[in-house]
Amino acid sequence: MEGKVEQELGSQNHHHHHNHPCVEISMEIHKVETPPKRSSLQKLKNRLKETFFPDDPLRQFKGQSAKQKWLLGFQYIFPILQWGPHYNLNLLKSDVVSGLTIASLAIPQGISYAKLANLPPIVGLYSSFVPPLVYAVLGSSKDLAVGPVSIASLLMGSMLRQEVSPAQDPLLFLQLAFTSTFFAGLFQASLGFLRLGFIIDFLSKATLIGFMAGAAIIVSLQQLKALLGITHFTKEMGLVPVMSSVFHNTKEWSWQTILMGFCFLVFLLVTRHISMKKPKLFWVSAGAPLLSVVVSTLFVFAFKAQHHGISVIGKLEQGLNPPSWNMLHFHGSHMGLVLKTGLITGIISLTEGIAVGRTFAALKNYQVDGNKEMIAIGVMNVVGSTTSCYITTGAFSRSAVNHNAGAKTAVSNIIMAVTVMVTLLFLMPLFQYTPNLVLGAIIVTAVIGLVDIPAAYQIWKVDKFDFVVMLCAFFGVIFISVQEGLALAVGISIFKMVLQMTRPKTVVLGNIPGTDIFRNRHQYKDAVPVPGFLILSIQAPINFANSNYLNDRNDDFVSNDISRTKILRWIQDYEEEEENIKMHSSLRFVVLDLAAVSAIDTNGVTFVQELRRVLEKKGVEASSIQDLVLVNPVGEVMEKLQKADGTHDLLQPNVLFLTVGEAVSSLFSSMKGVSSSHV
Amino acid sequence: MEGKVEQELGSQNHHHHHNHPCVEISMEIHKVETPPKRSSLQKLKNRLKETFFPDDPLRQFKGQSAKQKWLLGFQYIFPILQWGPHYNLNLLKSDVVSGLTIASLAIPQGISYAKLANLPPIVGLYSSFVPPLVYAVLGSSKDLAVGPVSIASLLMGSMLRQEVSPAQDPLLFLQLAFTSTFFAGLFQASLGFLRLGFIIDFLSKATLIGFMAGAAIIVSLQQLKALLGITHFTKEMGLVPVMSSVFHNTKEWSWQTILMGFCFLVFLLVTRHISMKKPKLFWVSAGAPLLSVVVSTLFVFAFKAQHHGISVIGKLEQGLNPPSWNMLHFHGSHMGLVLKTGLITGIISLTEGIAVGRTFAALKNYQVDGNKEMIAIGVMNVVGSTTSCYITTGAFSRSAVNHNAGAKTAVSNIIMAVTVMVTLLFLMPLFQYTPNLVLGAIIVTAVIGLVDIPAAYQIWKVDKFDFVVMLCAFFGVIFISVQEGLALAVGISIFKMVLQMTRPKTVVLGNIPGTDIFRNRHQYKDAVPVPGFLILSIQAPINFANSNYLNDRNDDFVSNDISRTKILRWIQDYEEEEENIKMHSSLRFVVLDLAAVSAIDTNGVTFVQELRRVLEKKGVEASSIQDLVLVNPVGEVMEKLQKADGTHDLLQPNVLFLTVGEAVSSLFSSMKGVSSSHV
Repeated sequence: MEGKVEQELGSQNHHHHHNHPCVEISMEIHKVETPPKRSSLQKLKNRLKETFFPDDPLRQFKGQSAKQKWLLGFQYIFPILQWGPHYNLNLLKSDVVSGLTIASLAIPQGISYAKLANLPPIVGLYSSFVPPLVYAVLGSSKDLAVGPVSIASLLMGSMLRQEVSPAQDPLLFLQLAFTSTFFAGLFQASLGFLRLGFIIDFLSKATLIGFMAGAAIIVSLQQLKALLGITHFTKEMGLVPVMSSVFHNTKEWSWQTILMGFCFLVFLLVTRHISMKKPKLFWVSAGAPLLSVVVSTLFVFAFKAQHHGISVIGKLEQGLNPPSWNMLHFHGSHMGLVLKTGLITGIISLTEGIAVGRTFAALKNYQVDGNKEMIAIGVMNVVGSTTSCYITTGAFSRSAVNHNAGAKTAVSNIIMAVTVMVTLLFLMPLFQYTPNLVLGAIIVTAVIGLVDIPAAYQIWKVDKFDFVVMLCAFFGVIFISVQEGLALAVGISIFKMVLQMTRPKTVVLGNIPGTDIFRNRHQYKDAVPVPGFLILSIQAPINFANSNYLNDRNDDFVSNDISRTKILRWIQDYEEEEENIKMHSSLRFVVLDLAAVSAIDTNGVTFVQELRRVLEKKGVEASSIQDLVLVNPVGEVMEKLQKADGTHDLLQPNVLFLTVGEAVSSLFSSMKGVSSSHV
Repeated sequence: MEGKVEQELGSQNHHHHHNHPCVEISMEIHKVETPPKRSSLQKLKNRLKETFFPDDPLRQFKGQSAKQKWLLGFQYIFPILQWGPHYNLNLLKSDVVSGLTIASLAIPQGISYAKLANLPPIVGLYSSFVPPLVYAVLGSSKDLAVGPVSIASLLMGSMLRQEVSPAQDPLLFLQLAFTSTFFAGLFQASLGFLRLGFIIDFLSKATLIGFMAGAAIIVSLQQLKALLGITHFTKEMGLVPVMSSVFHNTKEWSWQTILMGFCFLVFLLVTRHISMKKPKLFWVSAGAPLLSVVVSTLFVFAFKAQHHGISVIGKLEQGLNPPSWNMLHFHGSHMGLVLKTGLITGIISLTEGIAVGRTFAALKNYQVDGNKEMIAIGVMNVVGSTTSCYITTGAFSRSAVNHNAGAKTAVSNIIMAVTVMVTLLFLMPLFQYTPNLVLGAIIVTAVIGLVDIPAAYQIWKVDKFDFVVMLCAFFGVIFISVQEGLALAVGISIFKMVLQMTRPKTVVLGNIPGTDIFRNRHQYKDAVPVPGFLILSIQAPINFANSNYLNDRNDDFVSNDISRTKILRWIQDYEEEEENIKMHSSLRFVVLDLAAVSAIDTNGVTFVQELRRVLEKKGVEASSIQDLVLVNPVGEVMEKLQKADGTHDLLQPNVLFLTVGEAVSSLFSSMKGVSSSHV
């Protein structure tokens, strides 16, 4: 068919490479087919399946015996049954090493993060004991190190502090924290059960990078209290109030604290740098925090430094997690806050947990099931909330250490939990003299890795709009608040998506000389227009959000008024183009390439019908043929046009083609016939 | 090139129609080009222009003299300057006839609708006097009959009644109504100024049909109070409370009222039916309401029927609109409610006004500018709120009468306003004995046309999902509340759009025998797969909302685990397909047709890169080539892939093609070379 188009375009004298007679094929026109009929129920079923079960979780059950099905079912719910039976001593050796390593990190971090959430330090240790055990049974990731994390701790602390002061009413604050954790877990598990896991996809990469960097800076700024030894520190989180608090209290700065804090911070950053350069030396950065805690505690104890301006943690209780279900509040004046806190911390910690799980699973080439992971993390938090734990998830930094330390299965979490248990039972008095500044240094070192400058640069290079979204998240978190910065970035991302929908791309196609290929004339400078034809490609679903933009019914073509809408504007442009006026080639056919229109709704169908009507009317006025030609509609669009189009005007074979090339070659010849008979 | 593909596929022995040697073209491969470089600033400018100025309003100013520009500018702001100078006696004759006709409709409807909004009846007449005059100066529609409308009246009345009782505190209620009108106008005008007119596009056809039908039923049910003569009627709007109120007060029913109401209702419905059948007899239904008012008033006056259970309007004030700017509240406890009411009634009345304007402009082949109309309607309401008018817009029923009565310009609105003015000045005492039942009958007749069964059936036929949206709007309005029903329907529509985005369509393409065309194998049963190739077409922008769905990085191909995501599932399907196993044609190339991917973001770019990496890894494991081939990316996608792809692995000429046909024919030959050298 190429030869045909070629020959007919020959009069335009564009640079042709070939010219040869393949005419006999060119006239073969292929029919546009509709997909096989399905009932609405079948379609609905298919759509629901595609939405909620894209992973087809029951696939493995097909064709199995009943007993096998039960076994597979149990294994599906409790992945430990899958790998447990094959567990052996070699695996245990690796897991013990990695378990002890992450425990040495989890203990100081647990204490630090609990303080970040304005909770008693011991709650951080409780949260490193029960949740890892629950996750070991339910979780499908082999590398996830479970426990409290910095951003969720920060979020929970700052949100609850809006209504309750942790200093004045510590018991109520603790109760609200446990209740929020309960709701966060419930919400996470429900997302998994209802297979709504795709909700976390709405946190795009750009949003997350901006958010994490902002949160890291907010968290680091909070540590200035401990690192500078300030006693009267602001209760707010924003950059401005924190910096003003720091510089208005310069007389509270303690040089002993600053000196000691600086030393430990440098030590921790150097060890972190070493481990980043040589992943084999993971134990350098993994052991450093515990070593810092031990050294600083001994130092304080030896020199009675607590009397010289160094603030210490103070007395901690001893013993395992007390039950806390009687502390959960399900009514009262703070319910709204608790639900909101649960929702937001739940989503954020879920995002971190799933992302971390996926990252390491990809490295080791196994899989984690998003919805199942959500259930595991959710159940873990619900159980946690009844055993004095606050929100936990898979922590990025500790999981990386876990992975590097050679963790083979979730047993490393069990080893860690046992280590924490021993600490809780016997070693708590040792932390009495641990200085707060070393905890601050540990947090700063942990969160500094969340500021990902190379990733930000990559986003800037690829997509400026995404970069703006990232900046919004970043500055929103720093200057407004953690949760509002996040909401802002998500809102902008979704708004962009909706805007893309309301302003779909419409491009004019031209023929690439020597072929029957039609491409965007803006992108392919070679592509030439076909006289008498306006070939448009719409690249979005046509629906209520954009049909008005594409077509406005009330434009007056004849007058020289402002033509206002996309398609009609293209038509006017065509008519005003000098070349066309010179060549007297008035517009005969508007060809609409529907290949990229993936869906259509009733508004979209009306749009196509109206466009056809308008063109016909215009054709009558200009006493020429002006017809709407549709090319290559996908199955769904074809079906809906058929149903809506009682008279089948739109889908007659002479205005419906499989390719633009066939449409042009077929119509070009018919046009010649008409115009010659006119003359 | 067709011949080539044909020949190579020959081994499959599918029904071929042709087989002939056009091989020399087939090997000509066309380059994928990138669009000409533009700076980010240019792109941003373009994008903003496309979003906010798709209609290019400054187009007409180009190349004009300064004086001409000023004149055009004034004419743009005040369309009356455009048509005013050409006004003549013939036009005036038509406008007087149509103006008097709509006045005879506007007076009884104005009184009725004001009662629907729980406002004094005279406010309805005030609102039919000032706003039409303002619109005549600013508006660009020639047919719009401006005044109070049923749905906006209902909405304003029911929303304000949530906080203030019109019976107990009528002055405050009136003040809130004026203030809401002010904010509605401000909001409408801002939408126009900020060129955000596309916001009203989010009310899809399905939503509007369901909403209007539900509102019509709610409005009609409210008229049962007047038509049955019930004195203790519920204050609620829902179907359930209204029906229970009607049947719990049967002893209040007045047979005189019912009989008389029934007679007038039948009369009005019959006249409406006549005018609908014969549009020439428009005056039958147009004059009927005023005639009913006159006849029923005379009847009541003559027989002293007000003493026999027939309730009447009662004494009305006389005189023109008093100023009301001192009644606008800009602070106080009801501000939230007033803002919300203004926003919702503003959007709804704007939608009606614009839709009506567009409909009649299309019939007469002139244009109305959406954003300009919004400014006109907004200014009209702001002015109205300072002159004792409540919310007004272009009414559908009256505009239809206006059009049929031969209105030529907005002068018919001026004639109507003058008639209303005369009524306000001299005729108000005559309405003292007008029975409420006739107002009820007028409202029912007016709103019954809003229930559009044929349109609902059409939606059912074309798109089941839109039908569900329509039902949600309908039942939401009837059973929950007017504004919540509307919000529900809009929410569902947007949710569907977002869902379409998160679950983009991915289809497998096959070769249509005898051509180089590749199409959806599900839609085109003829299309045959090419052995060794998996050809996929993605039909949506690839972005953060769907890149996780399309590709999950951590699937294990080698094990028999559940493969979980869309593209990797297709690959697995390919490998498990019996035919492929039998033919030992293991997968060599995954061809991704990107023609329908209209945009991509950083997440999308990462998706493509990851997919390539995964395929390469898999290829190494299976010791075969597994390469990702991209076909026909649009300009923006091409650009972003280039920027992100430092090493240009993705865009090397051997994995980037202009058409699927060229990709397959080129790779097929290279594959043969490799496999023969393997053997």
